[in-house]
Amino acid sequence: MLVVKKFGGTSVANKERIFNVAKRCIEDYQKGNDVVVVLSAMGKQTDVLLEMANDINPKASKRELDMLLTTGEQTSVALMAMAMQSLNVPAISLNAFQVAMHTSSVAGNARLKKIDTERIQHELEQKKIVIVTGFQGVSQYDDYTTLGRGGSDTTAVALAAALRADSCEIYTDVDGVYTADPRIVKDAKKLDEITYDEMLELASLGAGVLHNRSVEMAKKYGVQLVVRSSLNTSEGTVVKEEVKMEKMLVSGVACDKNVARIAVVGLEDQPGVAFKLFRHLANHNVNVDMILQSIGRDNSKDISFTVTGDMADVAVETVERHRSGSLKCQDVKVKKDVAKVSIVGAGMQSNPGVAARMFEALYSANVNIQQISTSEIRVTVLIDREDTDRAMNAVHKEFDF
Amino acid sequence: MLVVKKFGGTSVANKERIFNVAKRCIEDYQKGNDVVVVLSAMGKQTDVLLEMANDINPKASKRELDMLLTTGEQTSVALMAMAMQSLNVPAISLNAFQVAMHTSSVAGNARLKKIDTERIQHELEQKKIVIVTGFQGVSQYDDYTTLGRGGSDTTAVALAAALRADSCEIYTDVDGVYTADPRIVKDAKKLDEITYDEMLELASLGAGVLHNRSVEMAKKYGVQLVVRSSLNTSEGTVVKEEVKMEKMLVSGVACDKNVARIAVVGLEDQPGVAFKLFRHLANHNVNVDMILQSIGRDNSKDISFTVTGDMADVAVETVERHRSGSLKCQDVKVKKDVAKVSIVGAGMQSNPGVAARMFEALYSANVNIQQISTSEIRVTVLIDREDTDRAMNAVHKEFDF
Repeated sequence: MLVVKKFGGTSVANKERIFNVAKRCIEDYQKGNDVVVVLSAMGKQTDVLLEMANDINPKASKRELDMLLTTGEQTSVALMAMAMQSLNVPAISLNAFQVAMHTSSVAGNARLKKIDTERIQHELEQKKIVIVTGFQGVSQYDDYTTLGRGGSDTTAVALAAALRADSCEIYTDVDGVYTADPRIVKDAKKLDEITYDEMLELASLGAGVLHNRSVEMAKKYGVQLVVRSSLNTSEGTVVKEEVKMEKMLVSGVACDKNVARIAVVGLEDQPGVAFKLFRHLANHNVNVDMILQSIGRDNSKDISFTVTGDMADVAVETVERHRSGSLKCQDVKVKKDVAKVSIVGAGMQSNPGVAARMFEALYSANVNIQQISTSEIRVTVLIDREDTDRAMNAVHKEFDF
Repeated sequence: MLVVKKFGGTSVANKERIFNVAKRCIEDYQKGNDVVVVLSAMGKQTDVLLEMANDINPKASKRELDMLLTTGEQTSVALMAMAMQSLNVPAISLNAFQVAMHTSSVAGNARLKKIDTERIQHELEQKKIVIVTGFQGVSQYDDYTTLGRGGSDTTAVALAAALRADSCEIYTDVDGVYTADPRIVKDAKKLDEITYDEMLELASLGAGVLHNRSVEMAKKYGVQLVVRSSLNTSEGTVVKEEVKMEKMLVSGVACDKNVARIAVVGLEDQPGVAFKLFRHLANHNVNVDMILQSIGRDNSKDISFTVTGDMADVAVETVERHRSGSLKCQDVKVKKDVAKVSIVGAGMQSNPGVAARMFEALYSANVNIQQISTSEIRVTVLIDREDTDRAMNAVHKEFDF
């Protein structure tokens, strides 16, 4: 069996943890498995390097930033190989050039294009544990690139796909994917299995265990993901295409508190006014989420939408700037103390009434719903932020996980 | 004009020094020159990395050590490029893969085999300052290698040769090559010029400014070397094939205090006994320097030789081990409080009497000569270590620099 195992920066932050990871990988190796390990930079090393760069040149080119940052993972993979060698297990570290990991040429946020597997296969045939730098790649011009947020997860999934690995294990500081954030919902339970689509909805809703890009890639190439803890040996959560028939109607309840709601009131009711509004916002890199359009009075209409909290001011300024021009309206209001609560479940598609049960639970808990949006496997409501925890618990209880 | 400039670790140890080097290179660039910069790792970074490795695995493989150490130069070149960019000068950093620097496959002590110049040429044509990692290379198996002691100097000279640079400037913490160590001889003068051969003799005699390997390579490829200070703008010393006609008879006086003298007394006077002695020593990696063989009494002979101070005990043990076998002798003596003092000068070849003048100066200073060795451009004497400074000054004065 070929297993790709990915460990983040906190898992290799010091000597003791490096040896813990080494032993964990060696256990798998000694069962006769081929083991490929993907590592991030140690602890806060990436931040330390960014500070060094910022001190020299706050506007450093992304190309040189990537040249600097890639030393972080190269350090951790070399030390890991040394640790395994000291435990008498043959191991070799490989960086993005040595693999090689071909990416697009966008420094700081490159996309993986192709992974050569020859060198890794060769080292696995020599019965070595192969340790690969996460997060980094090489462009067609032979420049280092980095993959942006969640980059090491992406590296691991892409390697698993290229090597046709039997499993890709993502080690985190939690036991797996939970039905809700255990810090908010005490009764939250670990899921044994979840589908890619459910995981994608949960990731984008702020569940935060896996980055969307790696889940999308896993889905595309059919890589079986396992989310598990680097702190204990519990089984974790398997992410795959289809889960067991007896699966639950709803897989999880998620919340996202980094939200603001913008209301544009009294827009002229003319064709193309919504289009103009959202084009202006897009031009300012404002990503719009839940959209609600309603008829106002006097041949006018209201449009409200949500954005991430940090983009609220930009969104308001953008609308204000065009009020005297193409976006004539009566008022622009922003409400920053809101949150999104969502339920996700592949079972919803064939089970009507799930949304109604959620709304009823919220009503019983005295939570006011400001806005609703749905997809095939998700229902999201916008509520007051102070109601978040009460809403989460009420909805979680309703679906009896 | 194309100039290769090499700066060591102390020259890039912190932000202030990085900017000093950046400005220095930019001055050359703004005169219209093509500038290639070779850097070592910052300050004591290589030692820090070695300690990290030692903490994880004191017997770490050289392959993984090189993987770790090469992050040091990659860090310094990236930061240097950022510094230059902040001064509005286009710059790009390149590591051994990107250049590429092809070496033999001996991790930790590789030899440069071939340097691709295409990428560097391309970047120079884009009017960029090109900053290259010193000390490191890539083997035919795509593994990182390092070049051993003086590695960054070697990188600079090899790059200068491959690029047919007009000059290769090695920046150090001294103003250039001196007629003697200024800490010992107050009247020591900086040389404007010196030949490769003289520099080689001085380097191997402990003058310590340039590593022999880089001088040998400069001589082989006719690269004009300039040794100069990173602290001031004085002209430094030019190292080249031939120096001006009015050059001095003797270019410098050097000493080496890391010496021990071994005397093997009363060896059987049989054919091959010297050969056996030195073969045994070579088998134990003992490098032998000044050799003196003399006829003893009763059909026996004495052989004495010098080794570096740290190999004295190994040398004695080696001889002792074979005394009952192939190396029958009466006694083995070691004298550790000795030093070598040498004069070096290409002018000696055509000027007899230089050695005699040196001996007379030492006699006048009451320095006893224990052993003598000469080459075409060098005379070396072995003396008591406590006489070193007096001897240096007497000889330096005799040749009136």
